[in-house]
Amino acid sequence: MAQKPNWILICAAAVICLIIGILIGRYGISNDKEDVSLPKAKMSATLMEEISASNIGEYLKYLSSIPNLAGTPQDLEVASWVRDRFIEGGLDEVQLVPYKVLLSYPDMSNPNQVSLLDSSGKVNFTTSGRQTPLFSSEEFSPLVQPNFNAYSANGTVEGELVYANYGRKQDFEYLKSIGIDIRGRIVIARYGAIFRGNIVKSAEDGGALGVILFSDPKDFAPEGRKSVYPNTTRLPGMAVQSGSVLLGYGDPLTPLYPALEGAYRLPEAEAPLPKIPVQPIGYDEAEILLRSISTENPAPEDWQGGLNATYFLGSKFIQRKWSVRLQVRMTHKLATAYNTIGILYGREEPDRYVLIGNHMDSWTLGGIDPASGTSVLVEMARTFGNIKEKSGWRPRRTLMFCGWGAEEYGMIGSYEWAEEHAKVLIQRAVAYINVDSAMEGNYTLKSQTVPSLYSAIREAAKMVPNPNPAEVKAGRKTVFDTWLWANPDLNDPTQPRVGNLGSGSDYTVFSHVLGVPSVDLYYDYQEKAGSYPLYHTLYETYHVVANLMDPGFQFHLAVARLMTELTLDLSESMVLPFDVVSYAHFLERDLDKIESRYTNLAANNGATFEYFRKAVAHFRNSTEYFTDIILPRLDTSNPLAVRKINDQLMQLERGLVDPHGLPGRPEFNHIVFAPSSVDKYSSDTFAGLVDLFKTVGNQTEVEQPNTWRQIKQHLSAISFLIGAAADSLREGF
Amino acid sequence: MAQKPNWILICAAAVICLIIGILIGRYGISNDKEDVSLPKAKMSATLMEEISASNIGEYLKYLSSIPNLAGTPQDLEVASWVRDRFIEGGLDEVQLVPYKVLLSYPDMSNPNQVSLLDSSGKVNFTTSGRQTPLFSSEEFSPLVQPNFNAYSANGTVEGELVYANYGRKQDFEYLKSIGIDIRGRIVIARYGAIFRGNIVKSAEDGGALGVILFSDPKDFAPEGRKSVYPNTTRLPGMAVQSGSVLLGYGDPLTPLYPALEGAYRLPEAEAPLPKIPVQPIGYDEAEILLRSISTENPAPEDWQGGLNATYFLGSKFIQRKWSVRLQVRMTHKLATAYNTIGILYGREEPDRYVLIGNHMDSWTLGGIDPASGTSVLVEMARTFGNIKEKSGWRPRRTLMFCGWGAEEYGMIGSYEWAEEHAKVLIQRAVAYINVDSAMEGNYTLKSQTVPSLYSAIREAAKMVPNPNPAEVKAGRKTVFDTWLWANPDLNDPTQPRVGNLGSGSDYTVFSHVLGVPSVDLYYDYQEKAGSYPLYHTLYETYHVVANLMDPGFQFHLAVARLMTELTLDLSESMVLPFDVVSYAHFLERDLDKIESRYTNLAANNGATFEYFRKAVAHFRNSTEYFTDIILPRLDTSNPLAVRKINDQLMQLERGLVDPHGLPGRPEFNHIVFAPSSVDKYSSDTFAGLVDLFKTVGNQTEVEQPNTWRQIKQHLSAISFLIGAAADSLREGF
Repeated sequence: MAQKPNWILICAAAVICLIIGILIGRYGISNDKEDVSLPKAKMSATLMEEISASNIGEYLKYLSSIPNLAGTPQDLEVASWVRDRFIEGGLDEVQLVPYKVLLSYPDMSNPNQVSLLDSSGKVNFTTSGRQTPLFSSEEFSPLVQPNFNAYSANGTVEGELVYANYGRKQDFEYLKSIGIDIRGRIVIARYGAIFRGNIVKSAEDGGALGVILFSDPKDFAPEGRKSVYPNTTRLPGMAVQSGSVLLGYGDPLTPLYPALEGAYRLPEAEAPLPKIPVQPIGYDEAEILLRSISTENPAPEDWQGGLNATYFLGSKFIQRKWSVRLQVRMTHKLATAYNTIGILYGREEPDRYVLIGNHMDSWTLGGIDPASGTSVLVEMARTFGNIKEKSGWRPRRTLMFCGWGAEEYGMIGSYEWAEEHAKVLIQRAVAYINVDSAMEGNYTLKSQTVPSLYSAIREAAKMVPNPNPAEVKAGRKTVFDTWLWANPDLNDPTQPRVGNLGSGSDYTVFSHVLGVPSVDLYYDYQEKAGSYPLYHTLYETYHVVANLMDPGFQFHLAVARLMTELTLDLSESMVLPFDVVSYAHFLERDLDKIESRYTNLAANNGATFEYFRKAVAHFRNSTEYFTDIILPRLDTSNPLAVRKINDQLMQLERGLVDPHGLPGRPEFNHIVFAPSSVDKYSSDTFAGLVDLFKTVGNQTEVEQPNTWRQIKQHLSAISFLIGAAADSLREGF
Repeated sequence: MAQKPNWILICAAAVICLIIGILIGRYGISNDKEDVSLPKAKMSATLMEEISASNIGEYLKYLSSIPNLAGTPQDLEVASWVRDRFIEGGLDEVQLVPYKVLLSYPDMSNPNQVSLLDSSGKVNFTTSGRQTPLFSSEEFSPLVQPNFNAYSANGTVEGELVYANYGRKQDFEYLKSIGIDIRGRIVIARYGAIFRGNIVKSAEDGGALGVILFSDPKDFAPEGRKSVYPNTTRLPGMAVQSGSVLLGYGDPLTPLYPALEGAYRLPEAEAPLPKIPVQPIGYDEAEILLRSISTENPAPEDWQGGLNATYFLGSKFIQRKWSVRLQVRMTHKLATAYNTIGILYGREEPDRYVLIGNHMDSWTLGGIDPASGTSVLVEMARTFGNIKEKSGWRPRRTLMFCGWGAEEYGMIGSYEWAEEHAKVLIQRAVAYINVDSAMEGNYTLKSQTVPSLYSAIREAAKMVPNPNPAEVKAGRKTVFDTWLWANPDLNDPTQPRVGNLGSGSDYTVFSHVLGVPSVDLYYDYQEKAGSYPLYHTLYETYHVVANLMDPGFQFHLAVARLMTELTLDLSESMVLPFDVVSYAHFLERDLDKIESRYTNLAANNGATFEYFRKAVAHFRNSTEYFTDIILPRLDTSNPLAVRKINDQLMQLERGLVDPHGLPGRPEFNHIVFAPSSVDKYSSDTFAGLVDLFKTVGNQTEVEQPNTWRQIKQHLSAISFLIGAAADSLREGF
């Protein structure tokens, strides 16, 4: 007999299941259409595995195989090669971006010369003008340029010689103080303490006829003349550091605007180029010059170097009426520099960009500068692109891999590009990660960045295995461990030290002009004196890197992994990993220093730090409130709420940018970080203010009314901007 | 007997219901927590109903009951009253924002005077210095200031009189051309053609000792001396138009930066204030002066006005050795101006702002300027606030209702506030809607805005019933219909004409400095001559508005409804209603004009429009591609995709802003829209370029190398910015 349905039970079951079903449907199923947002930890592991040291080595071998001076056919070849790697690597969009800019070249067949003349004008000695190939076949390339400093003035000058140590401001002041006049004379100075362009500027301002630059063996070959390339990474005697002496940034003819087709270009005479000739020589050659100087004026103890000579100041020679002749033949001309831009669009926020960049041009072979960084950049692009191709995963935000052109001449490619895209970058760029020479030694990581990224870079360093077996043996398992051990932060010894961004590489325009939080990083060596010995010489070869500095490319791998971890963190974290409270601490410490130094002087001249102090306190309160109160209650399921918070985090740095520029330096806008006005390489915090205090010295408002007025105006601007930046973190308007 | 359960059926039912449940849960329930996004059409109807003409009338009665000159206690009273209305209206957050700025006041007990002296120095006639109360009780207030021009220099000057018509550049040039020198003389000129500050500047530049200003009855009382206030809206003979003669914008002592506590302030001598005294007088008084001028130099036909006199140019008087004496006693001092900011946070995009603003200060009673606009503003805030309180509905984006302080002195409140919040506004402001005098007549709507908002304002006008019964009778049912009939667009007669923004009100800083798309609108009268007759006089009373101009406040209601429709559109539309292609058409037409005028001149001097033309073509292609291809495929269910598109639409206008300023005018940044350099009230498109072409005249590159250089530089900047703005609309980077 067929059972009758038990309708009550059936209905009850149906209702219960309907409810359960509704609950499952509502809460049990993710609404993401295609969930490719894998956990960050898993992506980190996948990325770390994918990065290949041997790829880096291969790239470096290619990149260091030809001299690729900006604007030459080889330079385009390298930029195209990077483009092809980006395409091959699976990036979504790759652009080769040309800019026609003013570059500067030596005469290939007629090298610049420095000669020693006797009283009759007869040449006793002349520099060779070229570096001798010593080891690798590529050193013999006919494309290697003779020795030169880009943007040197043309001309032949003759005169007595004055030795000016490192050519710093204080060095020239010392010479003046003991009555040695550089006017009408030729200055010889050592590389290694400040940017070479600033040496030339001081010499030119002092009335010198020309400048000769050399690298002292004390700094660059401390183990002596025999322990040098190709046996070690030290500098041989005929090696010459090339380099630009441009004091400006970006294309000298199109300041503040991009060098596009049809752009207005300044007359060359108005560009910030030296008006006197300058030429770099080897230390073997410098020795001959220095040994010829009269013993009349001995140089101070700390001006003595490593040459086989006692250093005298000049200006007379031992032999009566001898002189030095400096002959420079340069061509300055419009040439095309190329950037290679590779884009991997973001999964959820395609209009938010994390940029990773390095330049592609080099003075000669550039095995370290820039090939070590470019290899890392290309491998990173391949890694992200490859994983996207294989798994469909792409980070939440867009990645832009940027190969810059003509960095060596003055960050030209990055400046022109950032000028062209300034508005879009200000609105959309999350951060810029710079690598230049990725590896200058195997001692420790070094990094410069803005305070809000301190924790991100430190956390990334904790994720990367230590590439140094000796360090691992000593118990320091990660890059972070060695970094902390080798270089602790003086303000907080539990953390490794992070420095401030100067202006020695392509981060300059992003950080100091646009206010995009930027990072620069590399592996450094211990006994650093300005730069690694072979810097900008012919001997930056694959051999140096692969055989002497980083066999197996494990340090390169570590840098690539570190940058990849940082890139992942910045591009994948739902909430941007910016520690804004850290910025407040930084500003407080820095204001303390400024106040302790200048408060009395300021008060005596009608200026006050009161509003600066108030603004910084407000900044601290605002960042703390944002971090402690606003962030924890963020509804992470609301994409626009998350975007709002991220925009505030990202734009905080923009808030520290003054669109009207620093006092007397309209080309710099960041009120906290700007290059020092006396050394392009280094950074002064609150450079606008500190420069004015340096200018005013101990003079009063009556003696220097204009400078004091500028101090008050700039204090006012700083206080306003810091306060407004703090306000931008408010929950509401 | 108990029936056994039929498990098969039960299970089947359970499974089916589970599946149904899951489907309901997944697709049948909206994920919005609380859906308060009602259809825009419904909200429009609700808002239209809520706005009350009688409220507007009541507000206007209060606002015009006391003189509230900026920086006075009455001004604070009005700002506080607006604050209280905003709070009462239900806005989320209301701020009273003070700025200490340089304001300028006459001596209350010792009015400025213009006197006619005979050859012995005896005073024959002296102006009264005050306007006579004629009708309303509030005209008798002891708080009414004597007649003055704010920021006039102090001092007493004596000399002959020169009549300079409207004081335009061409008027002064005419005087010069016929040999009448204003040097050492006093200029008398008519109000009504250009901004009064530009009249004074030209006089000062020409060496005049002082300036006397009056309103000619031909322009301001065309029906004769009897048909005037209080019987009509025409100007009585002792009425005097007050007003500022400041040529700068914002607080004169803190250019480019906000006047915050501790801000650096310029010495007053460096502020852009006139160096000569200036005083406005009534036309009855002007008549006495003009009738005293010698008949030697008759003024041209079109310089003749409506006074009972033939106008002569001077400078001699009929009587030998007579002269005019101008005595001005002003106090310039730091005083506090207040803005009142009321915020209604957005439902989905709280960090996107639609701003609606008008100023609160007035020269005397300000029944029209600004009370007609302020009443509308306050009623709009109440309307939106009230509906939010009643229904919980709030628009998608944030509304900010802005009552500005010290607009009359030079847009000071809006400038200081926009300078203070510049960064945040650049990032977050969608649009700024300005109303000043909401109703100057009942003829037609007038509006000035940027091309991307043409269609939005026109669509809004179609939604608003015509407040003019005669027009309705004539078949023109909406505000749009009359507007189109009365003032068709010459380029497209199917659309009503929209003008360009000058700099006569608070939109200036938003549009011309920050690049926030702005709108200005009001109801105008037909036979306009510069301003409505009672403008800035004592007789801008409630009586004029309520009894003569807009009984029942129906025109005010129409303006309020129009602004509300526009506000709703901008704040509620998922995709911003910006017509970017319209901008391209505008640029093309304008470039055509410039090219047809200047191409030969430019070509003869090494300048070219080629890249400008290319950039505009690129702008057109980009806006069309964006509109036709990108917009239609937008996934509107993806909030971040919608945000991306909206950011591009919103930021396009920012792209036309040059952070480095226009040539020689760093205070203006918009390359397309800027006030004319010869009349602050009017607007030149591409003012930077047109000004340079005016300066260069027909002179060659050899004769004026610097100006030609500036032309080339600015052409380069314009071309770059238009191109980059176009690029910002790309789908990817």
